[in-house]
Order: sequence, then C-alpha cells, then structure tokens
Amino acid sequence: MTFEETCVRIAKFTEEREWDQFHSPENLAKSIAIEAGELLECFQWSSDADDEELKEELADVMNYCIQMAQKNGFDICEILNDKIDKNEKKYPVEKSKGVSTKYNRL
Amino acid sequence: MTFEETCVRIAKFTEEREWDQFHSPENLAKSIAIEAGELLECFQWSSDADDEELKEELADVMNYCIQMAQKNGFDICEILNDKIDKNEKKYPVEKSKGVSTKYNRL
Amino acid sequence: MTFEETCVRIAKFTEEREWDQFHSPENLAKSIAIEAGELLECFQWSSDADDEELKEELADVMNYCIQMAQKNGFDICEILNDKIDKNEKKYPVEKSKGVSTKYNRL
Amino acid sequence: MTFEETCVRIAKFTEEREWDQFHSPENLAKSIAIEAGELLECFQWSSDADDEELKEELADVMNYCIQMAQKNGFDICEILNDKIDKNEKKYPVEKSKGVSTKYNRL
Repeated sequence: MTFEETCVRIAKFTEEREWDQFHSPENLAKSIAIEAGELLECFQWSSDADDEELKEELADVMNYCIQMAQKNGFDICEILNDKIDKNEKKYPVEKSKGVSTKYNRL
Repeated sequence: MTFEETCVRIAKFTEEREWDQFHSPENLAKSIAIEAGELLECFQWSSDADDEELKEELADVMNYCIQMAQKNGFDICEILNDKIDKNEKKYPVEKSKGVSTKYNRL
Repeated sequence: MTFEETCVRIAKFTEEREWDQFHSPENLAKSIAIEAGELLECFQWSSDADDEELKEELADVMNYCIQMAQKNGFDICEILNDKIDKNEKKYPVEKSKGVSTKYNRL
Repeated sequence: MTFEETCVRIAKFTEEREWDQFHSPENLAKSIAIEAGELLECFQWSSDADDEELKEELADVMNYCIQMAQKNGFDICEILNDKIDKNEKKYPVEKSKGVSTKYNRL
C-alpha cells in the first residue's frame, strides 16, 4: 500500500466510526503529544527500546499527524518540503556540519 | 515531490550535516516529544491556531518521525497499516461508532 | 520563603493579571506538557544540561502544576502522599530493589 | 505531613529501592514529559477530567519534578521564586492584564 492509500485508509477508519466530531485540531494536537509521551516511554530508563513497541508507538504519533494534516487541509509533502527549505537556510551545511548547535546560537 | 522523494530529501539533509551521530533513536524520541510540545503550544490558550505556525510545527514532528523510521529501518506504510489492523480489532465499528471511549473500557 | 508562601505568591501573580479566565484545568494540562517539552529540550542532544536553563524550565513545570492543584482545590501534600502510598504497594522493596521494571511486569 | 517532609519521603522511597542509578537528570526529564502526557490524556477528548485520575497523574508529574530538584541540588522554593521574579518583569501587570499574549509579542 502506498503512503497516499494509507492516508485514505486512515481517513476512512475515522469516518466509519464517526470520530470526526472528536478530532478537532486541538484534540489532535493533544493526542500527538500524548502519543509522543508513550513513544518516549520506550526509552524512559534505557537508550534501547523494544522494536515492536517502538513501531506501534511511532505509528500512533504518525497516524494522528496525518489526521491533523487532513483535518486542516494541509498537503503533507508540501509542508514537509517547505520546512526543509527553511531549515536549509537556518542550518547552512558549512556552519552546521558535525555540530548540534541550535540555529540561533550558530 | 512524492512522499518517498521527500523522505530521501530528509535523509540527505541529515547526512550532509553529519548529524547522524546525534540522531540516536533515543534522541529522536526526545525530539518528537519536544516538537509535539511546540505543536501543542499553538493551542495553549485557545482552540484556534495560526495556520502557518501549525504547518511548521506539524512538519517538525513528522520530520523527526520519518527520521526515527529511517534510523530503525522501519517501513512507514507497513507500521502504519499494521497499527490500523490492530486498531480495527480494538475498535470494532459497531462498538465504537460515535463514542470516544478507550478500547479497554468499551 | 516557605513552599506555602510561594504557592500564595503564584496565585497572586495570576490573580493580579486576571489570567484565571485562561487557566482552565485543560489549558493548565496543556501548559504542563508544553513546559515539560522545554525541560526535555535541555537534554535533546546530550545527557548534560545547563544548570540555569534547567532551573528555569523545571520551575515553569512546577509553577503550572501548583496552579493545577489550586484550580482544582487539591492539597499538594495530600495527593503526593496518596500516590506514594499506592506506589509502595505497586513497587514493594523486595521485588523492585535495583530494577527499573514497570509494576505490571514485576 | 508538610511539603518538606513529603520531599524527604520521596527521597527515601527511591533510596530504599536503589533507583538512584536510573534517575539521571536526563531520565527524570523524560519521565516528567511522559507523566505530563498521561496528565494530558485526562483531557484528550474532553475539557472535563475525572478528579481521581487527575490527582494521581498530577502527583506523578510533581513527584518526578521534586526528584529532579533533589538530584541537581536545587532548592525548590528558590527556583520557583527566581522564576516568578523574572515573570514579573516579562509580564508587567499593566501590559498583561486580561490578555494571554506571550511576552515577546506584548
């Protein structure tokens, strides 16, 4: 299944359950933060995580992200590429190579 | 640009800056949670958010999610579809239609 | 200044600015998560953090936690001690000594 | 029990279980973010939360915050008051009364 088909399947899952009424942008933002916390829990006491748990938690975060994009009519590829364009300016290769310094301290 | 091409561009961005050394799965999990917090900040005092800020923050979360998948060798479509399979069992349409109840209380 | 006096000062700060209208329990929960993300950012790429930044971000999380307790009429010492009581049962010393295993796997 | 006595009890709980080895500042920062996510989950689909769940989740966040302060040798009242001092300068009453605007946009 392609990424586009997967996104359609996600929209259909929500639609069939009539969950659109709960999925306000604000509730989706909360949901993304909640799932990001569960993803982080895989690494709470160790830098190693169980692969199967990691896959599920990462999928949960991405699933809500996709729904946030759909709800707001955002094109996922467009917002990703627009942000990479900005990051290329904020983090020019010659300045940021091999350092994790934040752009406002470069 | 397709989603697959966008993912390649993300990998290249990190590679050119030699940032792979910082992008351990654990650090990426932290980064996803940090960016999810910034996305949530768009809704801190209101259920309305500025569209442009929202696009950028959502892109940041997704960008790190894509890198987490790449770092661990996960196929994004596969983990998303595997999780939807599970959710279809946890949330059968007839039980979950129109209710936001968590599966363990259904 | 004692902890109790500090809590009074926090309540007064909000009251003077008429911010009570924004500080619904839900908005405070979002604020705690947002500030927890900023605290985590101190450790995004390293296990060492700058002490001054850490102090400020930790204070921000605690400040909103105190406001959440005040808003809901919770006694902070009471809810902390009630939870420690529960944790003592979930994590008996003989079972949990020296291991970071979660209670449901002990 | 006073707040100070509660903090001593928290330190003793960790010490008895020899959990200090897991409680690096970085792991505590992750734990605070994880618990903040669980607190937020009380409000995932609604602005109303169950009081008993809320008390427990809030206590979990505060418990790890107290441990973070202890681990780093921070005085909780001092860091809280130092931050309120700063916030009083960032948010003067006359400018911020009745508005939720962030200080950098005031």
